[in-house]
Amino acid sequence: MHGTTGPAFQPTARSQLRRRPQRGFHDEATVFAILDAGVMAHVGYVIDGQPYVTPTAYWREGRTLYWHGAAASRMLNTVAEGLPVCVTVSFLDGLIVGRSGITHSVNFRSVMAFGRARPVTDLSAKRAAMEAFIDRLYAGRNVKLRPTTDAELTAIALVEMEIEEASAKVKDTGPTDLPADEGWSAWSGVFPVETRIGPALAQPGSAPREPDLAPYAVGARLDKALTEATAACRSPRSASGA
Amino acid sequence: MHGTTGPAFQPTARSQLRRRPQRGFHDEATVFAILDAGVMAHVGYVIDGQPYVTPTAYWREGRTLYWHGAAASRMLNTVAEGLPVCVTVSFLDGLIVGRSGITHSVNFRSVMAFGRARPVTDLSAKRAAMEAFIDRLYAGRNVKLRPTTDAELTAIALVEMEIEEASAKVKDTGPTDLPADEGWSAWSGVFPVETRIGPALAQPGSAPREPDLAPYAVGARLDKALTEATAACRSPRSASGA
Repeated sequence: MHGTTGPAFQPTARSQLRRRPQRGFHDEATVFAILDAGVMAHVGYVIDGQPYVTPTAYWREGRTLYWHGAAASRMLNTVAEGLPVCVTVSFLDGLIVGRSGITHSVNFRSVMAFGRARPVTDLSAKRAAMEAFIDRLYAGRNVKLRPTTDAELTAIALVEMEIEEASAKVKDTGPTDLPADEGWSAWSGVFPVETRIGPALAQPGSAPREPDLAPYAVGARLDKALTEATAACRSPRSASGA
Repeated sequence: MHGTTGPAFQPTARSQLRRRPQRGFHDEATVFAILDAGVMAHVGYVIDGQPYVTPTAYWREGRTLYWHGAAASRMLNTVAEGLPVCVTVSFLDGLIVGRSGITHSVNFRSVMAFGRARPVTDLSAKRAAMEAFIDRLYAGRNVKLRPTTDAELTAIALVEMEIEEASAKVKDTGPTDLPADEGWSAWSGVFPVETRIGPALAQPGSAPREPDLAPYAVGARLDKALTEATAACRSPRSASGA
């Protein structure tokens, strides 16, 4: 998964991985794979020296991240001013249990992406971006939906951020026994952590489920469903609406 | 779950919920329930005007949050200076699917906690805090573990942050049809999102699983296991090591 060839983000001091470089990556393949497996990001921004971290849904196209919300959103109005932003996406993948406190840890994947956001205000650009978001989650779904009105688009604030630099971190190990742990009798290993789709709750009178919702079958892993949906929406078949 | 009586955090402009106040809470019961169901937080901090958002494991005691890492960690060294910090914990609970793009959304629980962190350097205080972290995840486990050495404690950076103010947001709904959606035929409903424990991977030669690991049975929901483990570690039985 973690390519050392191919396009990569050029780190500055901001995103240079200083500790455990064997867990750190700057290549697009690793960064994009993590970003395309998630739906919620944590957006960091600063107002009068005070940091704020707001969870929000996001999507990616190339090196650009998008997120949106209500036009009155403090977060969106702040980041739309073009201030520096950090967008972090992370997955907890496992609880590591050892025979000493110090060897307990977690497995995870994460990306920190840095850039400056700017507002998308043109209604047709907004419409295209919002449709891309739906298609990213549910490839091909837009053709079945009631079209969004201009008034609805106006009530949304939408921002885009070109990723200036990004770093990924991945840890996927078991507990590492230390010499001092020898002879201690305690369970050690990993509890994998998996985020899955539960039984769907249909609205009364809902139409049957469409094929674009197939990745979200009960028991499906969410990160894999999102990766699958993202790939489907980028295929030529889906792009043509077929 | 969401008490309007009982102790509450007093909001200032920093944590005042301005939009959709029906989804916002400042009471300790709601804030603590969300914090006690998670293991990973996103810590926001500022260096030279640049925000950073770092995912990290945390735990709570009363109104104090703790997190730790390597002594060389940029994040820990920065926040330990007493600068303003925002610690955000969030759960994605569902994907909301509607009949128009605008009614698609997500269900979630989140807390934003504000304060200033300070380092914990006294070795006995560090030891007590690190043991509290293990017990919070695996109630009563410390008695079975090889004790942490002073050198190991020294190599850890540990910070504590008293929560000055905090806000919680909870959304748990289905799609809200708009008048314009009437007559459109598309599936609508919710895909619940559940984070669960996968099949445990024991290290070769591991001792059998102890009772403190019982909440992490295969298929168990992680948020519920953590809530259960937290409650167990706060019970008088567990506190006495029994």
